Amino acid sequence: MTIVSLLTDFGVEDEYVGVMKAVILSVNPAAVIVDLTHQIPSQNIFQAAQVINESYRFFPEKSIHVIVVDPGVGSDRAILAYEKKGHIFIAPDNGVLTLLAEEKGEDRVYLVQNPNYFLNPVSRTFHGRDIFAPVAAHLSKGVAIERLGPMLDVKNITRLTVAEAFIDETGAVVGHIVSVDHFGNLITNIDLKLMDRYGIRPENATIVLGNIKLQGIHDHYSSVNSGNVLAIIGSRGLLEIAVNQGNARKTLHAAVGELVRIKKSD
Amino acid sequence: MTIVSLLTDFGVEDEYVGVMKAVILSVNPAAVIVDLTHQIPSQNIFQAAQVINESYRFFPEKSIHVIVVDPGVGSDRAILAYEKKGHIFIAPDNGVLTLLAEEKGEDRVYLVQNPNYFLNPVSRTFHGRDIFAPVAAHLSKGVAIERLGPMLDVKNITRLTVAEAFIDETGAVVGHIVSVDHFGNLITNIDLKLMDRYGIRPENATIVLGNIKLQGIHDHYSSVNSGNVLAIIGSRGLLEIAVNQGNARKTLHAAVGELVRIKKSD
Amino acid sequence: MTIVSLLTDFGVEDEYVGVMKAVILSVNPAAVIVDLTHQIPSQNIFQAAQVINESYRFFPEKSIHVIVVDPGVGSDRAILAYEKKGHIFIAPDNGVLTLLAEEKGEDRVYLVQNPNYFLNPVSRTFHGRDIFAPVAAHLSKGVAIERLGPMLDVKNITRLTVAEAFIDETGAVVGHIVSVDHFGNLITNIDLKLMDRYGIRPENATIVLGNIKLQGIHDHYSSVNSGNVLAIIGSRGLLEIAVNQGNARKTLHAAVGELVRIKKSD
Repeated sequence: MTIVSLLTDFGVEDEYVGVMKAVILSVNPAAVIVDLTHQIPSQNIFQAAQVINESYRFFPEKSIHVIVVDPGVGSDRAILAYEKKGHIFIAPDNGVLTLLAEEKGEDRVYLVQNPNYFLNPVSRTFHGRDIFAPVAAHLSKGVAIERLGPMLDVKNITRLTVAEAFIDETGAVVGHIVSVDHFGNLITNIDLKLMDRYGIRPENATIVLGNIKLQGIHDHYSSVNSGNVLAIIGSRGLLEIAVNQGNARKTLHAAVGELVRIKKSD
Repeated sequence: MTIVSLLTDFGVEDEYVGVMKAVILSVNPAAVIVDLTHQIPSQNIFQAAQVINESYRFFPEKSIHVIVVDPGVGSDRAILAYEKKGHIFIAPDNGVLTLLAEEKGEDRVYLVQNPNYFLNPVSRTFHGRDIFAPVAAHLSKGVAIERLGPMLDVKNITRLTVAEAFIDETGAVVGHIVSVDHFGNLITNIDLKLMDRYGIRPENATIVLGNIKLQGIHDHYSSVNSGNVLAIIGSRGLLEIAVNQGNARKTLHAAVGELVRIKKSD
Repeated sequence: MTIVSLLTDFGVEDEYVGVMKAVILSVNPAAVIVDLTHQIPSQNIFQAAQVINESYRFFPEKSIHVIVVDPGVGSDRAILAYEKKGHIFIAPDNGVLTLLAEEKGEDRVYLVQNPNYFLNPVSRTFHGRDIFAPVAAHLSKGVAIERLGPMLDVKNITRLTVAEAFIDETGAVVGHIVSVDHFGNLITNIDLKLMDRYGIRPENATIVLGNIKLQGIHDHYSSVNSGNVLAIIGSRGLLEIAVNQGNARKTLHAAVGELVRIKKSD
């Protein structure tokens, strides 16, 4: 166990992330630290839940993932060490593990309470530095997860209510934009499995966003001309609305939360 | 000595930081490089002085810290190798070490002048790449600081004039906002030691910023309702004005330099 | 071969870069990953071509450089493994290697086609994760470049048309601004070699940008007063227009593409 990934809403203007790395390397000089992103919009727990869920499976087993999107820092919210498929996630108990926990598995979860693995003293405002970082570093050195604190029933962790796609009266699958990436691609909560359940195949789909109607799902961006809008299954396996060599968010003035409808073409 | 931290105003759009890392790893392939931040506002020496002073103590001893906020690059300003508590700081002699040097210790400082540890040739515009990076890498490999150049008296390094908090005619401690972090938290130059000197305790304090008056200092952000303003002692040990799950800079239209008053509640 | 550098237009808001690192470390846990930048403007192949050309020579030989500025991802554009001076570059065949290939050398280039070194399955939208990252990791472990696919004639790779400086009817060298860095420095395509060919020396040069006329080329930023405009040879060895302790892009309202003239002073 030597990889520690970091996912926060700290940005990179301040020293906060660098200091967490200093703490990790002080405990385990052999740790290999990977930044997932520090640009989660402040306190956007759901977006962090998506990012960790899309990312962790690309890391080798025994990686430790530190998630600090933590508006309740210093309150009595718990801190969790959550084990899934050989990975361990250190996160506040605020719902950020919701999507991970949805996927079935032999998951185990512990409360992080053993101060032997914390900095001393522990501040009330920066648990990323004082608790999450040193705990992750100790785990990466081989400390057993059981030593962090008592086991919890996985059913009892905090979960976010996730808006699911639904079927409207016309038989269309109705999802929504759940995030927008750096390129302005509009990422929805609709995947191939869901489409398949309703008999929608990429080549026979009609996709509607606002007053844009798209025929068919393309398999790469440049299969339409530069500047044109297309639907595509993106790298997360989700339906995206994109503009080839352009920015769909700007072109379509679209935002997270907007509805996207998909159905079989007539 | 294998950790090299980097603190610059280079941003991350250009290749400048990556090239510094390339130079470091060319000299010492075993160096572990940690970014503190590269988002210091251009040539803001005081902000860099704060960041390094708040950060270095979380690194293990024998870390090398490279600070390149250097508007005088290429001029005859000196470059310093400053040793404090087992850490070495490589920095231009422009005041960026002011806060470190204020804290008493057995500090030693040397001029960085030995071209055996520089790239060849040395440009006049990018000493971060040509001098700071290779010197840090050589130190991280075990080169003795004495080999860099002549020793200097610590008293003779350049220092910034730092505006201190003072007492006004009403007996209030008057500090100011010294920086604003990614979350919009307003960080002042008032700490618990200073408050204590004037008999101000967190629970009996009144804090005034503009026309905002706050009673008491909270110990975590979520101890007030979402969207409310609070005073708190932040992760740097300094008084901060914050908004729970919000952005105090935007909510209060506040900026660096504005006065913050604190006194015993009546 | 253990260093893998990354140059992309992915930004750092999303998990894309972190996931590429996860894939690299899954294949080669000993890889040392260096970010050059992920802030190439979306799909700006020419800017990426400049950055890699300016950067690679500062890395040790046997470094692997991954370049993912790839608007044609998923189409039939080829992926190249290009060897130059002991470095290997993994890049789409879209012109991003143009400047590297201009410099004479014993370069060799191979098509990246062997799926044994890819993730499985390979998506159509994220070859950075599914092809570039694992291929680079395998090379960094010592896999021979020949195993990736068939050799190609270097003459046959895609090249961008690069606008060269020219001589106008008054005998001035006419170049243009090719990029603007984080500090707002305006970087041109005019270097000392070109100036020398026309008998222009730094001390006898007149530089014109819009209605700004500068006499002489300075050798460091602070050789003029704060806020003043100057010409300088920057860290890439190119003529730059800069403002000491300021931002030339903002001060001069200048942008990429604008012409810069330089001639011998009268």
